[in-house]
Amino acid sequence: MRICFLNPFGTDKYDGIIKEVLSSSLRPGTALEVWHLDAGPRNLDYFAPKQLVQVEILRAAKAAEEAGFDALVIGCLYDPALTEVRELVNIPVIGPLESSTSLTRPFGHRYAIITDHHKAVPELKDRMRIYGTDANCVSVEAVGWFVDDMIKDPMKVADDTFRHVQDIMARTGAETVIIGCTIVSACYELAFQRGDKKLGELSVINPNLIAVKSAEMFADMHRAGQYRISRTAFYQNLQDHDPIEAADVASYFQNQPATAAERI
Amino acid sequence: MRICFLNPFGTDKYDGIIKEVLSSSLRPGTALEVWHLDAGPRNLDYFAPKQLVQVEILRAAKAAEEAGFDALVIGCLYDPALTEVRELVNIPVIGPLESSTSLTRPFGHRYAIITDHHKAVPELKDRMRIYGTDANCVSVEAVGWFVDDMIKDPMKVADDTFRHVQDIMARTGAETVIIGCTIVSACYELAFQRGDKKLGELSVINPNLIAVKSAEMFADMHRAGQYRISRTAFYQNLQDHDPIEAADVASYFQNQPATAAERI
Amino acid sequence: MRICFLNPFGTDKYDGIIKEVLSSSLRPGTALEVWHLDAGPRNLDYFAPKQLVQVEILRAAKAAEEAGFDALVIGCLYDPALTEVRELVNIPVIGPLESSTSLTRPFGHRYAIITDHHKAVPELKDRMRIYGTDANCVSVEAVGWFVDDMIKDPMKVADDTFRHVQDIMARTGAETVIIGCTIVSACYELAFQRGDKKLGELSVINPNLIAVKSAEMFADMHRAGQYRISRTAFYQNLQDHDPIEAADVASYFQNQPATAAERI
Amino acid sequence: MRICFLNPFGTDKYDGIIKEVLSSSLRPGTALEVWHLDAGPRNLDYFAPKQLVQVEILRAAKAAEEAGFDALVIGCLYDPALTEVRELVNIPVIGPLESSTSLTRPFGHRYAIITDHHKAVPELKDRMRIYGTDANCVSVEAVGWFVDDMIKDPMKVADDTFRHVQDIMARTGAETVIIGCTIVSACYELAFQRGDKKLGELSVINPNLIAVKSAEMFADMHRAGQYRISRTAFYQNLQDHDPIEAADVASYFQNQPATAAERI
Amino acid sequence: MRICFLNPFGTDKYDGIIKEVLSSSLRPGTALEVWHLDAGPRNLDYFAPKQLVQVEILRAAKAAEEAGFDALVIGCLYDPALTEVRELVNIPVIGPLESSTSLTRPFGHRYAIITDHHKAVPELKDRMRIYGTDANCVSVEAVGWFVDDMIKDPMKVADDTFRHVQDIMARTGAETVIIGCTIVSACYELAFQRGDKKLGELSVINPNLIAVKSAEMFADMHRAGQYRISRTAFYQNLQDHDPIEAADVASYFQNQPATAAERI
Amino acid sequence: MRICFLNPFGTDKYDGIIKEVLSSSLRPGTALEVWHLDAGPRNLDYFAPKQLVQVEILRAAKAAEEAGFDALVIGCLYDPALTEVRELVNIPVIGPLESSTSLTRPFGHRYAIITDHHKAVPELKDRMRIYGTDANCVSVEAVGWFVDDMIKDPMKVADDTFRHVQDIMARTGAETVIIGCTIVSACYELAFQRGDKKLGELSVINPNLIAVKSAEMFADMHRAGQYRISRTAFYQNLQDHDPIEAADVASYFQNQPATAAERI
Repeated sequence: MRICFLNPFGTDKYDGIIKEVLSSSLRPGTALEVWHLDAGPRNLDYFAPKQLVQVEILRAAKAAEEAGFDALVIGCLYDPALTEVRELVNIPVIGPLESSTSLTRPFGHRYAIITDHHKAVPELKDRMRIYGTDANCVSVEAVGWFVDDMIKDPMKVADDTFRHVQDIMARTGAETVIIGCTIVSACYELAFQRGDKKLGELSVINPNLIAVKSAEMFADMHRAGQYRISRTAFYQNLQDHDPIEAADVASYFQNQPATAAERI
Repeated sequence: MRICFLNPFGTDKYDGIIKEVLSSSLRPGTALEVWHLDAGPRNLDYFAPKQLVQVEILRAAKAAEEAGFDALVIGCLYDPALTEVRELVNIPVIGPLESSTSLTRPFGHRYAIITDHHKAVPELKDRMRIYGTDANCVSVEAVGWFVDDMIKDPMKVADDTFRHVQDIMARTGAETVIIGCTIVSACYELAFQRGDKKLGELSVINPNLIAVKSAEMFADMHRAGQYRISRTAFYQNLQDHDPIEAADVASYFQNQPATAAERI
Repeated sequence: MRICFLNPFGTDKYDGIIKEVLSSSLRPGTALEVWHLDAGPRNLDYFAPKQLVQVEILRAAKAAEEAGFDALVIGCLYDPALTEVRELVNIPVIGPLESSTSLTRPFGHRYAIITDHHKAVPELKDRMRIYGTDANCVSVEAVGWFVDDMIKDPMKVADDTFRHVQDIMARTGAETVIIGCTIVSACYELAFQRGDKKLGELSVINPNLIAVKSAEMFADMHRAGQYRISRTAFYQNLQDHDPIEAADVASYFQNQPATAAERI
Repeated sequence: MRICFLNPFGTDKYDGIIKEVLSSSLRPGTALEVWHLDAGPRNLDYFAPKQLVQVEILRAAKAAEEAGFDALVIGCLYDPALTEVRELVNIPVIGPLESSTSLTRPFGHRYAIITDHHKAVPELKDRMRIYGTDANCVSVEAVGWFVDDMIKDPMKVADDTFRHVQDIMARTGAETVIIGCTIVSACYELAFQRGDKKLGELSVINPNLIAVKSAEMFADMHRAGQYRISRTAFYQNLQDHDPIEAADVASYFQNQPATAAERI
Repeated sequence: MRICFLNPFGTDKYDGIIKEVLSSSLRPGTALEVWHLDAGPRNLDYFAPKQLVQVEILRAAKAAEEAGFDALVIGCLYDPALTEVRELVNIPVIGPLESSTSLTRPFGHRYAIITDHHKAVPELKDRMRIYGTDANCVSVEAVGWFVDDMIKDPMKVADDTFRHVQDIMARTGAETVIIGCTIVSACYELAFQRGDKKLGELSVINPNLIAVKSAEMFADMHRAGQYRISRTAFYQNLQDHDPIEAADVASYFQNQPATAAERI
Repeated sequence: MRICFLNPFGTDKYDGIIKEVLSSSLRPGTALEVWHLDAGPRNLDYFAPKQLVQVEILRAAKAAEEAGFDALVIGCLYDPALTEVRELVNIPVIGPLESSTSLTRPFGHRYAIITDHHKAVPELKDRMRIYGTDANCVSVEAVGWFVDDMIKDPMKVADDTFRHVQDIMARTGAETVIIGCTIVSACYELAFQRGDKKLGELSVINPNLIAVKSAEMFADMHRAGQYRISRTAFYQNLQDHDPIEAADVASYFQNQPATAAERI
């Protein structure tokens, strides 16, 4: 099974850490490639650049499908272009916010999210409201780091997050906490893997792993003919409505493949 | 006062009808220009092409601000790129779904929406849930027309809509109905203006007019220093976080101005 | 255009400040008269006297309609008798709570309300729940002033409010704050107009202005035949059900006109 | 124990039927007096006359407290002036909508309400939303009778209601149904008492009885010092804030006692 | 009237305090027997033992019905086996959480719950969500006592609770507070009865009394043929679906009667 | 990896069909054993027998953990004893209702559930409300079969379900449908596997498979030390609070192991 984990950043700087923290938790037989974008803005923290990035994600998703991947993970808790990509391609597509907020109850009764920075908070709340996964969420907060800075000091990010997790549990009654940013979570797991064992004692949810495991699950179901996605409206492809217009639109998504980076 | 009504379609075919139905309801002193896009796909009914259109909307919004408009209306009930444009520019930006669903209670106790086609229904429901305007909405349904076909027979669109409005009221208890597509509503008002008076006897909400009147209101408040938009997070501009990155992103939005079409 | 702003207080003490803070933000051609009640209790802070006041508001609304106003603003955030007046008269009627809580999203992602005193808090929460505008509201709190005291020291009211706005934003994540009392908001804007410029730097929503601008909007739509209020149930007038009973009831609302106070 | 059941109608026409249907279900030792109003409009179906009626209810409540009743039932499913009366008097005050919608779960999983006429539907929905009792309610509908007509043919009202109850259960999945109008319910119980036994086989909730039984309960608790109503805000009496103003307001509620009608 | 108050604990240690605090508030003619379980685990704080206890409660309920009681109160705020018992027996069955959270509005606008210990908090929240009584609840918290310890120092429990009530009111805006554990509430009322009068000055809701008064109410209605419980689905007895299977199941509930303890 | 699929029925009649429909969709390396209960009532359709069954489920879960399974699936859409079992054991425990309602969005925008019979409907609604997975669910309905009958004619069950799925989609706008009963779903998949290909063309969600795949996912995460379940409250084991009491309770769950049936 081949899974593409797409870092929706216009840089290869985060490919290594994602590969490193996920490799030990994969099941045998799963090959994970970490991709990044090679066009568009580097970051998608703000809404205007995010629009540009989402176009690149659509292109990368099309490329991943053509490259034969069994499933695609969009590696950012904004789940950027998640619905759009599902409309466009046929392989299962996973967003870590959707999958991690959907699977909190086996971890605890109420959950909280700690994301990276203040700009992300309202966007996450909006998406969770659409997903219908906010009923058991008691708080969405930011640890206060932007990705460009995190990569310079992942241990500090992990430490700040560890303390924020404890604090949010004490204040809000959350029993479990999603580390709501792929890179913050990667920093946290990296510190844990490097020996900071106390990080593993808190009930934190690793959205990178949840997303990859969900990708495995949906890829399995897809192969078995059991991922019966509805193409009646929400995920209906333009092809089913107007093939000529669809062909025209398709041309926009052909020319800029993302770059494969790290294969696990 | 100059208001730009942006038809987010890659064609000038709908500029005329929008101009025609709005001109009689404007207040003296309001100049309305109807713009359309001249790049990207013609339609935004499906999610993948909509992403491309949203980039063009951001470019057109930047152009409208530079052209000195007092406010911008994004002329589609998807409110495409509404949040994104508010982040990017300083003039008031109005989306007809946000403004019309916010102002239903003076029309009646519960409301319904009749939009154009089946693909739009889930998207409208999602956006209303984010806006927090769904509490008094009892149904979102589609009349079953795509814009490319509407323009060929606006009177038939109006007639279908009139019957659907009566039906949805009887079935759901909705007291008032938003005609939830700018072009469907324009067809409806056109038929009314051309003499089909029974159309004016139902409690229907015209989102084109609500949007333009809201644009006037916010432009007035903006001039008076009373549109104190918060720039702390949701609408914070990238410029406030990272001017260098902002300059880089800005370059993406400079080069493809929309074409002004009809000035009222 | 003539708009009646009805101070639902049995005193003329607040007419001046309302006139003063609104006059500079009106559009040319809008004539605003500030009325107050001349019967019933002076204040409507408590529920029992509020019932008496609401009868007087119905009388004043009937008088305002007969005096030819294009729209009526009920000048209190309780929106006292808002639904009742809409049932009784044909001109557009605006309540500042309904209109300001409906229009928060262009100001920010989540909002809070700071009202005058503790007695108002549950009432505002109840009304917002009915309006369906509470989904994006994170807190309703009181600054701790009653109107009788405010008028003696408006600058102190403004200062307390300014500090409470900052505090509520920091505690709750509200990005924008409605000053949820017409007189508290008037004190705030008065202080701002008199030179305390820092008050204008916070994202606060002025419900007096929102209400008057909404009155202009609905009056415009009413003239254009586009305020198609539903008279099927919620706003159905007794006249449509039983003209004889309606005539009997009408007699209760004829005899005590409010007094026009300040014409802008 | 003495309970006052106040018919908030300006007529004695409904006193008899209320007395008749309740008398057999009271516990020994409970004396029930049925009052009506002798000022104000006869009916409170519409919002404007309801305001006038609510002032009369406040007067009647004050009179009932002074007459030494242990509890007051406001005999209409609008719960007119319920909150206002609780603020004004110290004896327990019961509204049949509040009490019956609060006690549905012992009757069934989901419930519906059948009220009298179309005008009542939105008002009931609004009140239930405030009470927080709408979560398990699946529908609020009207059987289509006004009180003035009901009294002429109570058996027909009962029959229409019986059929509507069966229909709403089949359509909506409601397991139990509140007969959401005191007079419709009284007609239903009257027909049942007169021998139409099939009416007793449906799971219908009698709000008149629920209200009277709740009045007994709260009067018992009041006597035992266990009805510890909070007077901090929602039910705070004006007396606690401003005794002088309270004395002034009190004068409005002194002069028009309701007329005692039927003592059981 | 005979009411059985079942302490769902495998010990008689709490029977005395329940009897003591309730006896003075009963109405004349109500005979209250306090039962406890004599099989199964002593406590039901944790989910696994609670399952065992719930089987014993079903047995005790069957025994209580056979013993001729008019109503049964399950004496624990978890409302353990409430729905299950209602399915099994025909007499009214009351759970103190269901009844007390249903009747908060006559006490105040918003309420909070203070339960015994941390393990109870999520369970109470879940049940309230099912009941649909959480809309006006602002917080559920624990005072931090387990029943085994409470009985050793009831005055300390009362004192801790008194302070927590004041604190939760100040922090959350709750106007009234349910003491959300039968034994904590009994300690509170015991301290009050023994002379600590300040405890009676807070707006606290006594769920033991509410439950018993509700039992009286429903028993009265049952006798009058007015407790028309729906047996269509939620409370449908197995007997109505499959008498043979029902007979088999019934055998499980016959053999272990609870022990009657204290008769008031 | 060894997964135990526990049919919570006191019969081995359903073990074969579950084994048959799941075997082709498992991933290599997953060994699935289907267990059933050998004590307690045969069915858990009604609440009282379900309590007895839940005790047996706790015993079986304890036995499964001791038998070395990596994860346990409780094979019924009631998710009987799900929370209780999670409290008691350390291996991951999956309920098909929780997992399937959590993972609907990748299948479509809104979903419905078709369960077996009328008695199940309210229970499923209650559980979904607790899980917080009801926001995107538009209807829960029953196809009208009890398990004892299904096994006699699985093809008829599949056919009835197929038609109900189409009907519910047309009526409610659901884009995807959970077949909300393990045996109904097994009948459906059996018919599909035997060649009724049209059944695979609808967007139906197979909760048996979703549950087993979720069990694989959580077992993988458990092995990797990444299933960090919170033991602070909701899932806190009695052992952590009171080891002596825990030992006493444990004795209840030791003596009646379920019988392993079919190993795939």
